[in-house]
Amino acid sequence: MSDEAALLARRERLLGRNMSLFYEHPAHIVRGEGVWLFDADGRRYLDCYNNVPHVGHCHPHVVEAICRQASTLNTHTRYLHEGILDYVERLTATFDRSLDTAILTCTGSEANDVALRMAQAVTGRTGVIATDHTYHGNTSAVSQLSTRMPPVGGFGGHVRHVPAPDSYRPLGGESGQAFAEAFALKVEEAIASLQESPFGFSALIVDPFFANEGFPDLPSGFLAPAVAAVKKAGGLVIADEVQPGFGRTGEHMWGHQRAGITPDIVTLGKPMGNGHPIGGVVAGSDTLNAFRGAFRYFNTFGGNPVSCAAGMAVLDVLEQENLMENARTVGAYALDGLNRLAEKHGIIGNTRGAGLFFGAELVLDKREKTPAPQIATRVINGMRERGVLMGKLGIHQCTTKIRPPMPFSRDNADLMLSTLDDVLSGL
Amino acid sequence: MSDEAALLARRERLLGRNMSLFYEHPAHIVRGEGVWLFDADGRRYLDCYNNVPHVGHCHPHVVEAICRQASTLNTHTRYLHEGILDYVERLTATFDRSLDTAILTCTGSEANDVALRMAQAVTGRTGVIATDHTYHGNTSAVSQLSTRMPPVGGFGGHVRHVPAPDSYRPLGGESGQAFAEAFALKVEEAIASLQESPFGFSALIVDPFFANEGFPDLPSGFLAPAVAAVKKAGGLVIADEVQPGFGRTGEHMWGHQRAGITPDIVTLGKPMGNGHPIGGVVAGSDTLNAFRGAFRYFNTFGGNPVSCAAGMAVLDVLEQENLMENARTVGAYALDGLNRLAEKHGIIGNTRGAGLFFGAELVLDKREKTPAPQIATRVINGMRERGVLMGKLGIHQCTTKIRPPMPFSRDNADLMLSTLDDVLSGL
Repeated sequence: MSDEAALLARRERLLGRNMSLFYEHPAHIVRGEGVWLFDADGRRYLDCYNNVPHVGHCHPHVVEAICRQASTLNTHTRYLHEGILDYVERLTATFDRSLDTAILTCTGSEANDVALRMAQAVTGRTGVIATDHTYHGNTSAVSQLSTRMPPVGGFGGHVRHVPAPDSYRPLGGESGQAFAEAFALKVEEAIASLQESPFGFSALIVDPFFANEGFPDLPSGFLAPAVAAVKKAGGLVIADEVQPGFGRTGEHMWGHQRAGITPDIVTLGKPMGNGHPIGGVVAGSDTLNAFRGAFRYFNTFGGNPVSCAAGMAVLDVLEQENLMENARTVGAYALDGLNRLAEKHGIIGNTRGAGLFFGAELVLDKREKTPAPQIATRVINGMRERGVLMGKLGIHQCTTKIRPPMPFSRDNADLMLSTLDDVLSGL
Repeated sequence: MSDEAALLARRERLLGRNMSLFYEHPAHIVRGEGVWLFDADGRRYLDCYNNVPHVGHCHPHVVEAICRQASTLNTHTRYLHEGILDYVERLTATFDRSLDTAILTCTGSEANDVALRMAQAVTGRTGVIATDHTYHGNTSAVSQLSTRMPPVGGFGGHVRHVPAPDSYRPLGGESGQAFAEAFALKVEEAIASLQESPFGFSALIVDPFFANEGFPDLPSGFLAPAVAAVKKAGGLVIADEVQPGFGRTGEHMWGHQRAGITPDIVTLGKPMGNGHPIGGVVAGSDTLNAFRGAFRYFNTFGGNPVSCAAGMAVLDVLEQENLMENARTVGAYALDGLNRLAEKHGIIGNTRGAGLFFGAELVLDKREKTPAPQIATRVINGMRERGVLMGKLGIHQCTTKIRPPMPFSRDNADLMLSTLDDVLSGL
C-alpha cells in the first residue's frame, strides 16, 4: 500500500467516511512557514488558499505570544483578566463607534450561533434571512441557514433565502441601481413572508463580501436598499466577517466597511487568532446586553488569555507589517495578471475580487456564460500537482478561490499566475 | 476608584453586563502553576475548582507540545496529517472497542451539538431526554436541554426532562434497586411521551457522573435499567464526559465505565487539551458514518495539529505522572477528611464524590435536609478570602464543588480541609 493509501485507510478507520479532503491526491502537509506549506516528502507548495493563518503560517510573533501566555496562565473569564479587556478594546476600536462591545467564542460557528440569538433577544422574533448559497457555520442552529442538505427533522421554517448577488449574471440587469434594487426587493419579499409567519422577522445575515457565493463585484452602495428595508421592518443586520475581515479586502479592515454599511452585529472567526481557535461577536452594548439578559451564556474556553494573546499578536503583525496595504497592492497586481490571462484563455469568463481574495470564473462559453465546474476542479488539481494550492467556490462552483495568507508578495503572485497560465494552456 | 472597581467597570463597558464572575470579590488572576493560581498582588490561591487545566496549570509538557506544533504547522483536516490520527487512535484505545472513531471539535458544546445530530442520523428521530438540572453546553440546540431559561421563541418541544438522581433524597426510597428503577421509570415515561409526539425518541443524554446535579453516590448498576429502556425503544445513549472524563473519578478513565454502561456516543471537552480549545465526539464507526452521511459537517479548527498535540500531551502526563491513581488515593483521603469535618459541623448534611470530584452538601437541618444555598455561597466566598478557590453546584445549589487539577496532593487536601474547617467554624 502506498503511503497515501495507508494514510487514507487509517483516516477512514479513525475519523469515519465522507470527511472532506482537498484534491484528487490529498496533500500530506507537515510544515508551514509564511505563505509556504511543505509536504512529507519535503516538497514546497505556495499557499494561495488559507486565510486562517492570516499573517502567515507559524508567524513567530503569534507563536511567541501563544507560548508566552500558555506558560503563564490559561483560564476562563469568571476571574478578572486584563488580556481580554485589552484585546476587545483594541479590536472594537477598528469598528464604527456604535459597535463597542464583544463576546468571545472559540469558532466562527459559535459566533454566528450567538449572533442569531442576539437578534432574537433584541426583536423577540426568530425569522432569519440569508442568501441561498452561503455558509455560516456548523452548529445545528447555524446549519439551518444552509440550503445544501435538509437536516433530520427538516428545516425549522424560520429561514428565508434570497438569491445571492451574481455580478456576472446580475438579477435586475447590468445597471448598478437595478441590481441593488432587485436584491432589496427579494429581501423585502422575504421580510413580508416572515412577518406573515409565526416566527416574525429578526435579522438579515450576510457576508458583506459574499465570499462563498463567488465574491461578486458589487456597485457602490449595493447593500444600502436591502439594509434600509431591514431597518424599516425593525430587523437587525448581521455581518459575517469570517472571510472578508481583518483587512483581507485591502482597503478596509472589515467587509461591511467596504460595502458602506454599519451592521448591528458583526461575527468573526477563522483569521482572528492565525489558527488558534478564537471567534467573536461584536455589537453595540444595548444589543449585547439584550442577549445577556435573555439568554444564559458562558463559554469555557471563550476569551481565555491564550486566545486573546493570539488575537492581539495578529493585530500587532497586521499593523507592523502593513499587511492591509500589502493586500491592496499585491491583490491589485495579481488581479491585473489574472485579467491578462483572461485575454489569453477563453475559459476565463470573468475575473473579480478585492485585495487578497480574488479569482477567475471559468465558463464553457462566454456568450452563454455556461459554468465549467468540472474544469475548475481539473484546474485546482493541476495547480496542486504543480505546487500551488487554491480552491474553487461560487454559486456555480466554477470560480477559483485565491485567498492566500496576507504576506503574499508580487513574486508569489507571479508564481501563481505563471502556474495558472501553464495549467490553463494544458487543458 | 479601586483597581477592582476600575477593572469591573472596564469589563462591563467592553464585555457587557451579566457576564458571570466568581466570588463577591472577584479574583484577578495573572499566573498559574500546577494547583496554584496567583493574583495581581502576588497572592497565592490553592485551586480546588478548575478541571480545565487537568494536569495542572501551565504544565510544561503540554506547553512545550503546543509551542512546538504551533511553530511547525497549524492547519485543518482537509489536508492529511498524522497528528489527528495518532491522537484519535490513542484516545479511542481508552474506550470500549465498540467506540472506535471520533470527530474532533473545539468545545464540549460543539461536541454535544454534533452528538444530538448523530443520534438523529441513526434513528431518524429528534426527541431527546435529559436530566432536569443538567448543563450540556451553550449552542442554541444544546441550550434547549437546559430548563433554566426559556429561549426567545420558546422551547422546541422535543426535549423531555427526568429528575436527576439525588442520592441524599433518593426518589423511590433508600434501596439501591428501588432508586435505580424509579429513575428508569421516569425515563420510560419520557420515552413514551416522545413516541407519542411528532419528534419520536432519539437519545438519552446524561453525564454518567451527574456532576452538575451534585454528583450523587449512585449504587452499582444504577443506570442499567434506564439504559435498557433506551435500547429497547431503539434510542441511543449519549454520555457527556466533559466533567468526569480523563480519569478524574480515580478508578476509571471515563465516567460511563465507572457507571458500568457502554454508551453509543461519548462527548468530550474541558480537560481534553488542558485549556487549549479542543472537544470531541467518540462513537462506533456506524454511528459516526450515519452522521457523516446525513449532515455536512466540517469544523475549521477542529482536529488541527496544535490541538491534537495538546491532547496527546495531556494523555502523556496522565500516564507519566500516574494522575488517575493520584485522583483515586488523594480523592479518598480528602473525602475522609471531609467526613471528619461532617462529624464536627452540623451544617454538612452529606459528603460524597469520587476521585478528585467531591464535596459536602450543606443543609440548615439534617432531619429535613433543608438546602442551605446562601450559606454555601458564604462558604465559598470565605474560602476564597482565605486563599482556596472552590465552587458550589447541585440541584439545590448547596453542595461545594471541589474539583482541582489532577496533581492535587495530600498536603493540598490538608490545606483545603483546614481552611474549610476554619470557615465553617466562623459561620
